[in-house]
Amino acid sequence: MDGQRKLLVFITFDGSLYHGWQVQQNAVSVQQVVQDALERVLKVRPGIVGCSRTDSGVHANEFAFHFLTDSRIPCESLVKALNVNLPKDIAALRCTDAPADFHARYDVVYKEYIYKIYNKEIRSPFYHNRALFYPQPLDIAAMQQAANGFLGKHDFSSLCAAGSSVTDNTRNVMLSEVEANGDLVIYRVRADGFLYNMVRIMTGTLLWVSQGKIKPDDIDNIINARDRNMAGPTAPPQGLYLNRVFYGG
Amino acid sequence: MDGQRKLLVFITFDGSLYHGWQVQQNAVSVQQVVQDALERVLKVRPGIVGCSRTDSGVHANEFAFHFLTDSRIPCESLVKALNVNLPKDIAALRCTDAPADFHARYDVVYKEYIYKIYNKEIRSPFYHNRALFYPQPLDIAAMQQAANGFLGKHDFSSLCAAGSSVTDNTRNVMLSEVEANGDLVIYRVRADGFLYNMVRIMTGTLLWVSQGKIKPDDIDNIINARDRNMAGPTAPPQGLYLNRVFYGG
Repeated sequence: MDGQRKLLVFITFDGSLYHGWQVQQNAVSVQQVVQDALERVLKVRPGIVGCSRTDSGVHANEFAFHFLTDSRIPCESLVKALNVNLPKDIAALRCTDAPADFHARYDVVYKEYIYKIYNKEIRSPFYHNRALFYPQPLDIAAMQQAANGFLGKHDFSSLCAAGSSVTDNTRNVMLSEVEANGDLVIYRVRADGFLYNMVRIMTGTLLWVSQGKIKPDDIDNIINARDRNMAGPTAPPQGLYLNRVFYGG
Repeated sequence: MDGQRKLLVFITFDGSLYHGWQVQQNAVSVQQVVQDALERVLKVRPGIVGCSRTDSGVHANEFAFHFLTDSRIPCESLVKALNVNLPKDIAALRCTDAPADFHARYDVVYKEYIYKIYNKEIRSPFYHNRALFYPQPLDIAAMQQAANGFLGKHDFSSLCAAGSSVTDNTRNVMLSEVEANGDLVIYRVRADGFLYNMVRIMTGTLLWVSQGKIKPDDIDNIINARDRNMAGPTAPPQGLYLNRVFYGG
């Protein structure tokens, strides 16, 4: 038990009041608030590495980060202490010791996002900041047919925010489902990685399908064009939830 | 179409930031904010009469109020205009013309409340202010057995906040159900009327049953005692939702 430990911590957060995960100047980020809480618990401020960046207003049912520490605190105690020290819109879910070469971003096997659409004629006070309010009827069947077109290994440049600096835009989408759940329509997508704004652009493109602006079969052409201008608009952040981060094992 | 109309409006609100329905000095109430919105729409400030008072932090999936107006605005337009003028934590659901002798409080046939308990080991950022966080396992079967004891017409003095000025404490409970729904345990109760804090005390009493402090069969004795000290504690407000207001027809 000598030397530094690497700890992997899973958290959940309501991103409404945060400027995303990553520490920024002049804006409160989830990372900064989690570091504040860790510092209160550990008496030193660790650098922490998140599984991904998230945008302003985006939520997480599950988000992971790692950090190095000299502390011998048991994982269960760390989770409890974090939950005492974190604000009510962030909670620690679990913690585990990780191998020395583990990396919260590079070792992700897959991530799953959900995008929540509140699909009623009148907005709900309970989904403000928690879902996209979309009062028009949705064509779930057409959206699901289009969502199937995202499955598989593709260059997703058409579904990546313009100006992204990533060079290889190939990702493998292994799940892409649209489901109605009470007043919500939920798009669920799982992949080995995601490009910048990819899920929000996928969702905006599925909404285009529901609106009849494009057909479900057009997804192939949109992907093959490798042109951001071919896909739908970027859906707003408040509907997006990082739902699961999977590291294997 | 001459003379004054009486309008019945149904709304929904997240009560987190409000000191209940009723207008108060030095505190923001839902009633006041709704009157502000009505004044912007109608250019006069109507007095409005709610279906019940609600406590600070209590929510409503459906709440009703009536008011008199000289306006000829169609109901549908009023709903739309209200939703433009209301803050995001309150929404107008529907509106209807009511008979001249209609009263939003006295004409209620039944009301239904739900009480949400978030029953997981770790608190959720998404249920802060929206449910009671209760990390211990719940004995749903015992709670349901106890909930059956509330059914029927009884003097509910034991389940009414001490100091209430109501003289007849007899109410008829027609539905009383405990259900597990994902991470939530929901207590649903419908009656022809409710005493002050009645649902919150019922919920606190059901939690006592789950904790083994009393037995499901004790509900009869608690009711018959007509003594507030016999029942469980008043559960906190954030789990309580007025779920339905029914006027018949």
